[in-house]
Amino acid sequence: MACIDLNSDLGESFGPWPMGDDVSMLSIVTSANIACGFHAGDPAGILSVLREAEKRGVSVGAHVGYRDLVGFGRRNMEPTSAELIGDVIYQIGALQGLAKAAGSTVRYVKPHGALYNTIAHDARQAADVIEGIKSIDPSFILMALAGAPLVEQARAAGLTVVCEAFADRAYNADGSLVSRRLPGSVIHDPQAIAERMLRMVVEGRVTAIDGTEIMLEVQSICVHGDTPAAVSIARTLRESLVKGGVELKPFTP
Amino acid sequence: MACIDLNSDLGESFGPWPMGDDVSMLSIVTSANIACGFHAGDPAGILSVLREAEKRGVSVGAHVGYRDLVGFGRRNMEPTSAELIGDVIYQIGALQGLAKAAGSTVRYVKPHGALYNTIAHDARQAADVIEGIKSIDPSFILMALAGAPLVEQARAAGLTVVCEAFADRAYNADGSLVSRRLPGSVIHDPQAIAERMLRMVVEGRVTAIDGTEIMLEVQSICVHGDTPAAVSIARTLRESLVKGGVELKPFTP
Amino acid sequence: MACIDLNSDLGESFGPWPMGDDVSMLSIVTSANIACGFHAGDPAGILSVLREAEKRGVSVGAHVGYRDLVGFGRRNMEPTSAELIGDVIYQIGALQGLAKAAGSTVRYVKPHGALYNTIAHDARQAADVIEGIKSIDPSFILMALAGAPLVEQARAAGLTVVCEAFADRAYNADGSLVSRRLPGSVIHDPQAIAERMLRMVVEGRVTAIDGTEIMLEVQSICVHGDTPAAVSIARTLRESLVKGGVELKPFTP
Amino acid sequence: MACIDLNSDLGESFGPWPMGDDVSMLSIVTSANIACGFHAGDPAGILSVLREAEKRGVSVGAHVGYRDLVGFGRRNMEPTSAELIGDVIYQIGALQGLAKAAGSTVRYVKPHGALYNTIAHDARQAADVIEGIKSIDPSFILMALAGAPLVEQARAAGLTVVCEAFADRAYNADGSLVSRRLPGSVIHDPQAIAERMLRMVVEGRVTAIDGTEIMLEVQSICVHGDTPAAVSIARTLRESLVKGGVELKPFTP
Repeated sequence: MACIDLNSDLGESFGPWPMGDDVSMLSIVTSANIACGFHAGDPAGILSVLREAEKRGVSVGAHVGYRDLVGFGRRNMEPTSAELIGDVIYQIGALQGLAKAAGSTVRYVKPHGALYNTIAHDARQAADVIEGIKSIDPSFILMALAGAPLVEQARAAGLTVVCEAFADRAYNADGSLVSRRLPGSVIHDPQAIAERMLRMVVEGRVTAIDGTEIMLEVQSICVHGDTPAAVSIARTLRESLVKGGVELKPFTP
Repeated sequence: MACIDLNSDLGESFGPWPMGDDVSMLSIVTSANIACGFHAGDPAGILSVLREAEKRGVSVGAHVGYRDLVGFGRRNMEPTSAELIGDVIYQIGALQGLAKAAGSTVRYVKPHGALYNTIAHDARQAADVIEGIKSIDPSFILMALAGAPLVEQARAAGLTVVCEAFADRAYNADGSLVSRRLPGSVIHDPQAIAERMLRMVVEGRVTAIDGTEIMLEVQSICVHGDTPAAVSIARTLRESLVKGGVELKPFTP
Repeated sequence: MACIDLNSDLGESFGPWPMGDDVSMLSIVTSANIACGFHAGDPAGILSVLREAEKRGVSVGAHVGYRDLVGFGRRNMEPTSAELIGDVIYQIGALQGLAKAAGSTVRYVKPHGALYNTIAHDARQAADVIEGIKSIDPSFILMALAGAPLVEQARAAGLTVVCEAFADRAYNADGSLVSRRLPGSVIHDPQAIAERMLRMVVEGRVTAIDGTEIMLEVQSICVHGDTPAAVSIARTLRESLVKGGVELKPFTP
Repeated sequence: MACIDLNSDLGESFGPWPMGDDVSMLSIVTSANIACGFHAGDPAGILSVLREAEKRGVSVGAHVGYRDLVGFGRRNMEPTSAELIGDVIYQIGALQGLAKAAGSTVRYVKPHGALYNTIAHDARQAADVIEGIKSIDPSFILMALAGAPLVEQARAAGLTVVCEAFADRAYNADGSLVSRRLPGSVIHDPQAIAERMLRMVVEGRVTAIDGTEIMLEVQSICVHGDTPAAVSIARTLRESLVKGGVELKPFTP
């Protein structure tokens, strides 16, 4: 029986500003990437999401980002290696502390936003993130973009890597994501998304934007939860996968 | 043989701004209260101090503070209980992560600045700090002002508490600190400080500002390291204690 | 013909986090208290609101707050006088710069949240805010809580003061606000709010929570815009005032 | 008689962390680039430096930077145009407010650190900074690196530009700065610096790192003040220029 993990970015409220519908998403996903306070998330809010995740048996990962709150970690930055290593450890440690208080455990690390995109191909920053993770706990799993150079780099450095696909994104024939600046890069139809992902999980294939059939082997699918429409897409996807005979469960043991 | 711990606030640099002479102080003290990023300290700098502390066998505690960088955690604030509990856990967790990377372990918690002063007597905020500490690890030791109501409150809540004296501060006849606003509250003569503290450790007594002899039982003495004069006072104190037959060692096992 | 100003707190989004429906509110109010970046608001977002306000002829004031983003300026703090004076000037200046770029002008100052509540009665912090305002431009108008000691203090210091009422708040017999912790402190019925405020504007009277008729002379009414219900209340209030023959216009010349 | 301006980065302390010897530097320079709170500087500290500058007749400019306090604005960032324009206006406005309170006026704008280096050649971010400056006051003078593409871009956009040299930096034969990563890029000998700069001011020439004589026409020389050695270099330079018959005065009218 095929199985897959669904992950989403949660805990991204900050102080008086809510973001996303974390409670609904925790009833849909099997893994939650929890903000660690640098791009989003404040301690009290993060703690509350961690408690909810624990109650629902959702696996928890550290969603580490650049130290850029106003830019939500979405702006490219060039921290030094010492800074980036320190920032990664600090964020993971902070989330581990809050997870301990919530009765749960941080199982994996998923970089966020510009950091996610940068280390997919920037070997220097990737090495810093890898070193940060390993120096706090080498058994952490790194969640990365399927097909990115980072995957091999992290494995060569001894980390376990889990690859993810993006439910609503179109792929190029070489397996890379179609740039958001191009038409057709984001798929909006919930049914189309659900069908694509079901086929990817069951057959290991998706249709690229140019019609090519490509292989895509992933252990997790990323879904959004920041708008009511996104929550609805995620729910439709979950239901379609279940109806299609796919078991939904965390990739973590 | 009498023994005592010497502690100091370290890791308080931030980005391009240095503070104090951490390396010198680590050759003097036996316990280091390390800033956790809220009132001071950035991850890379904290990590570097933790490595130096580990190399020198200095015990490490989390110096948690209010989230007030520009005010250095010295301004009274009124966070809600959820906020304060979350902030305490977050800071301890972050420091634990960095300590892990440095090969060391966080052994105790010492609140900083306005938080230290507030919880000495404010039972609500004290309860929040205690809950934060216990929820991440109830075996943490809390370092508190000798004689403060906090000491009993924390013990009643199940925490181990270590009491400290301030090397350069005058005491009132009731064992409380003379307010900094009053003349004579801070002692500047290194020799006088050294003699007072030696007597306190060996005999358990100090002379209060009005001449009264008071009992002061502490397990640690706090020394400053933020100016060359402060480092020199701390060094003189250490030497006097050693010459006086006192063993210097961390209060942690 | 009776006339009144309606004011609301706007520009409180931050980075990726929206807050309130600023565009709708700008079609309802005659004065906009614009966040200045310390408790809320980022430069790009503030600039955009200022442009919209200018387009609609809404008067603009600086909504200065404590430097406490995560706490939204709602937590009591104790900055020194030098800090508070500097923070007030800095925020007003920053908003003046953005207003200049938007083709408009900052006309008044309204402290926010905990700072608003504190200086209503705390003479030291009030003096600091007054000094900050006067040192950048003594012709600024200060918006303050009707009946608060601040009103007299600021006038004695030479500032023009405009008093405001809160549309949805109950009053005590002495003209002070009923504490939010007490039942009945907040009025939720849009029609009741509209009728109370119309009477206050036309007759200068409201009924206090104990039934006493009290005089309340104000030049502005504060309405909220942070939820759809709040926007709807504000709109109902505006329509009732207009229907009741009240002219709505900024208190500024 | 030849004349020149000496400028330095001041007001870079933050909260409890001092940086540089601002008072000494204000007795040496004729223009002060004052931090605006994004890469460094807090309102109370900035206000205090502005007052000192006013007392000594030193001209004042806005030293605007990226919003990156821990990185001191030295890390490359990629803000959107809306963000960068807003950030520039906000910082200039804030400094104008504080300058008003100090009895002085902001006369020019000098970008800081990574922003300075980036806009020297990055036309998009340069355009954003130019638009920010013009939208608050098109009569502001922009201080830029002599020879950088920015100089022409800003002039074409209508800004007055003042070019500066760096007292302690070596130049390439094409007039660009020798990268800090190369040996010989920074000149440490106070006497050598003084002689180079005197010749540059009087003859308009400096010797490039490869021995070539190059023309360098500047209206200001940048000196550092962040260490005692830097202050001493700046003082030696000032004295040599005066002895060499050069008049020191601000480039501003």
